[in-house]
Amino acid sequence: VKLSQLGEFGFISRIETGAVVRPGDVVRGIGDDCAVTRGRPGWLRLVTTDLLVERVHFLRGAIHPRQLGAKALAVNLSDIAAMGGIPLDAYVSIAVPTNVPVEELDEIYAGLKLLAAEWDVNLLGGDTTASLADLVVNVALTGEVEEDRVLYRSGARPGDTLFVTGTLGDSRGGLDAILNGRAAESDAARELVRRHHEPRPHLREGRLVAACGLAHAMIDVSDGLSADLPHVCERSRVGVEVFEAQLPLSPELEAYASAHGADAAAFALSGGEDYVLLLAGEERLPAALAGSGTTVVPIGRVVGDGRREFVRRSGDRVPLASSGWDHFRSIP
Amino acid sequence: VKLSQLGEFGFISRIETGAVVRPGDVVRGIGDDCAVTRGRPGWLRLVTTDLLVERVHFLRGAIHPRQLGAKALAVNLSDIAAMGGIPLDAYVSIAVPTNVPVEELDEIYAGLKLLAAEWDVNLLGGDTTASLADLVVNVALTGEVEEDRVLYRSGARPGDTLFVTGTLGDSRGGLDAILNGRAAESDAARELVRRHHEPRPHLREGRLVAACGLAHAMIDVSDGLSADLPHVCERSRVGVEVFEAQLPLSPELEAYASAHGADAAAFALSGGEDYVLLLAGEERLPAALAGSGTTVVPIGRVVGDGRREFVRRSGDRVPLASSGWDHFRSIP
Repeated sequence: VKLSQLGEFGFISRIETGAVVRPGDVVRGIGDDCAVTRGRPGWLRLVTTDLLVERVHFLRGAIHPRQLGAKALAVNLSDIAAMGGIPLDAYVSIAVPTNVPVEELDEIYAGLKLLAAEWDVNLLGGDTTASLADLVVNVALTGEVEEDRVLYRSGARPGDTLFVTGTLGDSRGGLDAILNGRAAESDAARELVRRHHEPRPHLREGRLVAACGLAHAMIDVSDGLSADLPHVCERSRVGVEVFEAQLPLSPELEAYASAHGADAAAFALSGGEDYVLLLAGEERLPAALAGSGTTVVPIGRVVGDGRREFVRRSGDRVPLASSGWDHFRSIP
Repeated sequence: VKLSQLGEFGFISRIETGAVVRPGDVVRGIGDDCAVTRGRPGWLRLVTTDLLVERVHFLRGAIHPRQLGAKALAVNLSDIAAMGGIPLDAYVSIAVPTNVPVEELDEIYAGLKLLAAEWDVNLLGGDTTASLADLVVNVALTGEVEEDRVLYRSGARPGDTLFVTGTLGDSRGGLDAILNGRAAESDAARELVRRHHEPRPHLREGRLVAACGLAHAMIDVSDGLSADLPHVCERSRVGVEVFEAQLPLSPELEAYASAHGADAAAFALSGGEDYVLLLAGEERLPAALAGSGTTVVPIGRVVGDGRREFVRRSGDRVPLASSGWDHFRSIP
């Protein structure tokens, strides 16, 4: 069996078998944005980890090392946000080609520490090692969330509205600009590239959504809406309808797409790395958050049967294909 | 500044600056075998993480994938052992070249899960991603230890005896056999290679040493005695004397060394990857552990001045040079 046939999530389901041998304290193991174990009274402990590999997740020449360090932490903060949690302590493992100057490493850690300080996160440990080829950064991050506020991928109910906490497709637009040599071509392109390199973890949004008590399921959009939404469908055993006309697009993405004939809706649907939160909850959720500074945008609804549909502006209904990023399929 | 000039531990000291922004719950940050934070009443929480990189830590052709998976966990279990702790939950990040067969990955996880089950450790999460060059495995591991039993690198006192919990140099002997094409040449070589590929975490030894109340400092021997002992000296602000005649050598290492003219004492002093525990404590510690099945072997003593000496069989005293493994110096 080839990995490219099995796919990333096919492989992950193989890992789950026999993974928990001491179930007492485990609330959720493999299969959500964070692992969840029992913590101090009334609270749950969260752990997440993400690995960034040179030439797969980033190009050393394209991203500033300060951005790289911050992004390595941000993608983990986003996983804590998706549970409605508060981040606590980070552990950073790094494998470094020996030709990397110390100053570049200093910048990676400077970026990481800046974002860590912004969110009150300690850097408590890690591992440093050599690499003969690519620079590799792994961050493991702990956090916590109240037992009565935690949100999982499971829990979405038929009749729920689907929301996102920010615009979709910007990161993919930035990547498109980088790959096509247009990164500095316009203000819109520059802003999209910045969003690609400097994702903002939606921790505040996650806390507010969890606190309001009107959401039933949450996940962060890391691999793309069309790849991440199926996880909610599977874990919640529901279907979904997503409306193209409702996908929130930034003015920058619309300007970039119209200037270069790019498909903004396709970027929004399957682009990945937006790190906004996707949630299912009650229709009145936006009203409950009014005045908080956090906006949640409805993009579709949860249905009771198994269908996963994308409703085009034309009214055509097409299957919501999982066309987002899959590490074992997307790389040849 | 080049990394090779700064060295691995020179770089780590740069990372420590500004790493802790929320000190309330932090007992130990960067600089011990595990990070230590406050846990449930009477207990401390431990976290450690270790990154293994192909061609730096292992050769895919030389180590069986099942051994690789187990070793990736074992080196982290060893860090928990060095604090006197109990391991809890593991999080595994893996970057996989897409030509690696799924069956090889299955074997990596099978080895990891077998060792995890042996020590009652859950596999609760991780990350899977592609790599364009090397296979990379990072394990983050949590654990806990009683507040009144935890052992740090600091705490060694002048007059303490230095002990190790097992033979030294076997892993380096195994590596020597692999690198010189002698891995299958004799029973002794085969056994040394096995010990190199299948390090046994000294968790039971760590618990017993911590429980007996007679040890003052502990560390695991991962980079080599001559590289790890200076960490105890620095954190405890003491000096040490180590006696060549007392270094415990296995019959297999002695047989291999005499057959091939290898320097067994040099392997024992600076070989690395033995994953035995090194501790400083009261002279009567071995007597207190008699009958437990755990043996601790005295190899030297702690002194009040700053000297770090290696006393040869001849009686000559030479500086205990930190000739162990340093990722940023040892790789050209």
